[in-house]
Amino acid sequence: MSADRAASEGGEGDGAERVEIFDTTLRDGEQSPGISLNTQEKVEIASQLARLGVDVIEAGFPITSPGDFEAVEAIARTVSGPVVCGLARTQKGDIDAAWGAIKDAERPRIHTFISTSDIHIEHQLRTDRDDVRGQARAAVAHARELCADVEFSPMDATRADVEFTAEVCGIAIAEGAGVINVPDTVGYTTPDEYTAYLRRLYELLPELRDVRLSVHCHDDLGLAVANSFAGIQAGARQVECAVNGIGERAGNCSLEEIVMLLRTRRHDHGFDTAIESTELARTSRMVSRFTGYVVQPNKAIVGRNAFAHESGIHQDGVLKERTTFEIMDARDVGLDSNQIVLGKHSGRHALKDALEQLGFVVEGNALNQAFKRFKELADKKKQVTALDLEAIVSDEMREREDAHDLAWFEVEAGSRREPLARVAVKLPSGEEAVGESGGDGPIDAIFLAIQKAVDTECELRQYTVEAVTGGEDALGEVTVMLRVAGRLATGQGVATDILEASARAYVRALSNALEGAAVREAEAATAEAAVERTPGP
Amino acid sequence: MSADRAASEGGEGDGAERVEIFDTTLRDGEQSPGISLNTQEKVEIASQLARLGVDVIEAGFPITSPGDFEAVEAIARTVSGPVVCGLARTQKGDIDAAWGAIKDAERPRIHTFISTSDIHIEHQLRTDRDDVRGQARAAVAHARELCADVEFSPMDATRADVEFTAEVCGIAIAEGAGVINVPDTVGYTTPDEYTAYLRRLYELLPELRDVRLSVHCHDDLGLAVANSFAGIQAGARQVECAVNGIGERAGNCSLEEIVMLLRTRRHDHGFDTAIESTELARTSRMVSRFTGYVVQPNKAIVGRNAFAHESGIHQDGVLKERTTFEIMDARDVGLDSNQIVLGKHSGRHALKDALEQLGFVVEGNALNQAFKRFKELADKKKQVTALDLEAIVSDEMREREDAHDLAWFEVEAGSRREPLARVAVKLPSGEEAVGESGGDGPIDAIFLAIQKAVDTECELRQYTVEAVTGGEDALGEVTVMLRVAGRLATGQGVATDILEASARAYVRALSNALEGAAVREAEAATAEAAVERTPGP
Repeated sequence: MSADRAASEGGEGDGAERVEIFDTTLRDGEQSPGISLNTQEKVEIASQLARLGVDVIEAGFPITSPGDFEAVEAIARTVSGPVVCGLARTQKGDIDAAWGAIKDAERPRIHTFISTSDIHIEHQLRTDRDDVRGQARAAVAHARELCADVEFSPMDATRADVEFTAEVCGIAIAEGAGVINVPDTVGYTTPDEYTAYLRRLYELLPELRDVRLSVHCHDDLGLAVANSFAGIQAGARQVECAVNGIGERAGNCSLEEIVMLLRTRRHDHGFDTAIESTELARTSRMVSRFTGYVVQPNKAIVGRNAFAHESGIHQDGVLKERTTFEIMDARDVGLDSNQIVLGKHSGRHALKDALEQLGFVVEGNALNQAFKRFKELADKKKQVTALDLEAIVSDEMREREDAHDLAWFEVEAGSRREPLARVAVKLPSGEEAVGESGGDGPIDAIFLAIQKAVDTECELRQYTVEAVTGGEDALGEVTVMLRVAGRLATGQGVATDILEASARAYVRALSNALEGAAVREAEAATAEAAVERTPGP
Repeated sequence: MSADRAASEGGEGDGAERVEIFDTTLRDGEQSPGISLNTQEKVEIASQLARLGVDVIEAGFPITSPGDFEAVEAIARTVSGPVVCGLARTQKGDIDAAWGAIKDAERPRIHTFISTSDIHIEHQLRTDRDDVRGQARAAVAHARELCADVEFSPMDATRADVEFTAEVCGIAIAEGAGVINVPDTVGYTTPDEYTAYLRRLYELLPELRDVRLSVHCHDDLGLAVANSFAGIQAGARQVECAVNGIGERAGNCSLEEIVMLLRTRRHDHGFDTAIESTELARTSRMVSRFTGYVVQPNKAIVGRNAFAHESGIHQDGVLKERTTFEIMDARDVGLDSNQIVLGKHSGRHALKDALEQLGFVVEGNALNQAFKRFKELADKKKQVTALDLEAIVSDEMREREDAHDLAWFEVEAGSRREPLARVAVKLPSGEEAVGESGGDGPIDAIFLAIQKAVDTECELRQYTVEAVTGGEDALGEVTVMLRVAGRLATGQGVATDILEASARAYVRALSNALEGAAVREAEAATAEAAVERTPGP
């Protein structure tokens, strides 16, 4: 046992070597199926990442869509503190788009990548090694003309010939890349192999010592955190990771796990980050809420059961001495932040203060709206907690003037009759459209009634409900994933009434899908936007 | 790339060294807060573990409650194939109880443990090293008098003095323990440390080479799989793990991850297991359903997104050549088992066949009941898939004669009125009790009406809904966790109507809690049952 109190304090000054945290929640994480964050949500997450103290925010992949470009630009313009990074393939157009989106950031970075594995070179790029050398050289050179801070990744490096990878990285360094990231793109390597690979890379390319080495590991075999840690032990001083470990397939290295591993064991291993660990729990909740990706109860660090004393069961040993079964303190990851509590009689000022403590700056009309929802909730719940406030403010942020919206609904149901739902949807034009339907259950009936109201066919792909807080009067948060005209989109809704939360979530998912479809049509109309889908490192 | 087809076939005969899989889903996993499996569910999971091909099933901790004893005994009597293991502290009573429960198994094992770390010895056991030596010696000696197969664990070994741990393990071996398990009880170690620890243990205790070395790792820092793998590389030939990685706090090493890591990389690392990997997905679903513990979408191997092609998004590279971004084939983990499909006109015989393919042996009245539910469902859904069948049969298995049951309900609700629910609950006596209530939403109203009907106060701790399959007409599966009179209990319900599924889940959770409370009162009445809660390795 070594780490304990002081764990939330950043841990510098005790001789630990600083490892930078490069967060890719908004890029690799956001590429997960069904996640469709709008610009406002992305800015909100980026602001929270800045509060969390990450060193780099990979904000998106600007060439892939006008929406992605816009979000990266908005983050670059509003978020201060971390480096803001945009991803780009080696094509000139990609790099120009990345620069266009990030150029207003305090500290912009262009991250460019190309595969060095033969399997990718042959089957994905359909080219040869010589072309890869040339593309890497041209890309880094062009990026450096635009931006002083350039990162280069040899994609699928762990399945590539280490000598060829070293050669390509050498070219990138010669052209001015300051960060070399060695990704385990498909989550294939093991800690011992990765260590050996990176050691060999240092041998082959001594110039690697002059730049920052970075690791980017995927969790397909459950080893992302261990491989990242092995990378750090081998010399990496940047870790690419995502909140809740989201990302392509089984996701990326989980930010909260690698951070708490380094912090908890810093006196033994000598590494730490600048992360404000007490922000971890809130960041995890925000990302889970906005993406609709649940965190399983047994997830390390941020799962509901990660800390035994959170579960309400105080084990005998834990009571006698906390450290008998707990190596971390729940307070260090911010699990006590739920102590802010407002009641029925709390005023607008108290609400504003509480929201500011939670990191939300809410003013004017948004504050009025939040106050109205707060009062409605306070009428139903004895106590309104920080988690409730987070949920209702996040829900408010999802409202948009120009979108479809739930106006009202009515349902009759029971085990001895067919349900009947009537739903009114406010259209972007401002008109109200009403639909009526039976169904297999009341929610099915509501969903069918919404489809009738807006006259659009939707396929329900996923439906989840989570209680925001405990208790009978809990807010329920519903996430709906729909497929509309070949496009997946999600929507969330929060209410104490599950039918209302479901109806809201459904209308929002539908609205997001229709809006996405509109964006896509616009994109298809421009020649430049015909970008092949590529997962990135 | 190396592993591929043939991955489901067990992989022996190609020179890979066999690692045994010791599954602790029903012991360490079942100790997670809020999980309350009944004997029938435990037997069903154990039978599935046997089909999966695990080597050892740790079926429970018999001394802790009559319910645990009964379940271990039932598993020992009905499940054939794997070793059936019961956990015991070093006390004679524990070991006698473990033996009493497992003695009818084909291959029984007693697993006994005591801490060797000073922090546990002082704060949990409140004793000294000499006493630990004596207890270990007496426990293993007594266990060996009863049972030929005895496993010993020095709890919290990774935080203990390695020399003292070696000494205690040496005593256990001298007394006849055939398996020595070195647990990372609090999830504190790292792969390099664990490797060094085990190497040192071999140096200090050469007799360790004569027995089977086992590893048992917790995931508090996200390293359970990597540490287990490091243990195997250092000489361990048994891995203790749990399905979906459930267990105390952040859980145990995930069974499916370590199995697929060894299999996918067996040509490089030379290890494999006897697991029938095509059973992994189904086992994961069953455990998730019975425990109410969701699997996050980005969970490796069994998460919804673990395989890109499952998500409906075929990435460009994957289409060109599967191995560009996928190192495993979804078919190898059984993700194609959803191909069994029945329709409206399928008969009883087709249903019975389909259920048998899914591993359910259902006959007589249970088959009639399942057929009735199937027909009701087939009226609502165009196609009934394997996932649907699993869900309705699992739901039927939850029905018990002597429990509370949902009789009927009626609800009226809407965004412009207060909801009103009337619910009738069938009591264990056979009578129907009706309750009526308003609430914050229709589900709240139903839950309050149930409380009124049975005249019992309950606190809702958790409420989750998951769609069993995609589509508008999907079955919804609701899990409710209640706290009733200080006791946590869960219940599940399945229906196309979310209100009905919720009402069923609530009544079952309530019934489980009341039954548990009855068991606890009976236990408290017997002096012997005053067993201190202890988490085990």
